[in-house]
Amino acid sequence: MRTLPQPHPENFDLAAVLHALGDPVRLELVRRLAEDGETTCSPEGLTVPRSTLSNHWRILREAGVISVRTSGKSRLVTLRLDELDARYPHLIGAVLDGLAPRSPAGSPGRR
Amino acid sequence: MRTLPQPHPENFDLAAVLHALGDPVRLELVRRLAEDGETTCSPEGLTVPRSTLSNHWRILREAGVISVRTSGKSRLVTLRLDELDARYPHLIGAVLDGLAPRSPAGSPGRR
Repeated sequence: MRTLPQPHPENFDLAAVLHALGDPVRLELVRRLAEDGETTCSPEGLTVPRSTLSNHWRILREAGVISVRTSGKSRLVTLRLDELDARYPHLIGAVLDGLAPRSPAGSPGRR
Repeated sequence: MRTLPQPHPENFDLAAVLHALGDPVRLELVRRLAEDGETTCSPEGLTVPRSTLSNHWRILREAGVISVRTSGKSRLVTLRLDELDARYPHLIGAVLDGLAPRSPAGSPGRR
């Protein structure tokens, strides 16, 4: 297994992290990683062309949001949650909370 | 004074908010608004062409991050902090904290 190039936490850039998170498909990828832990880079049920998906993974990786390990043709992706939390406390938690369905009183299940 | 079109908090979109924040100039504009309160849309000391700046303000406004009031030629900008906090608790605070200079022990003033 080798890890694809990724920034050291000291070199994280907040604008780049927010830009990486600022897309509905990438947010969905991050939500799944937070929920499922390490996954392959071909998540089920996403109707996104493979090349587009590769580009999303690259943007997330280059910003420091995810880590990608490769072995032959297989790629495993993880969220760099601990490093992001250490560098930007509460940021990813606030983003994940913001993605959760809201259920105000009287409107169960409404977003 | 009239307020330029802006989304209702119910229609905030997290990806759009994060995209709006995911740019170094827009982050600097937000940092200044958080620090200074309502300001004009021509902040001092930013070497950004006026048309580029207008575009940044528009992206922030359309995402719901700022509110712009106009009267004749004057425009006043505010951060929609309370509404953002209500919709995405801790998000803007985490972003503003992430922008603050870090001073680890032994490295005063280092970012």
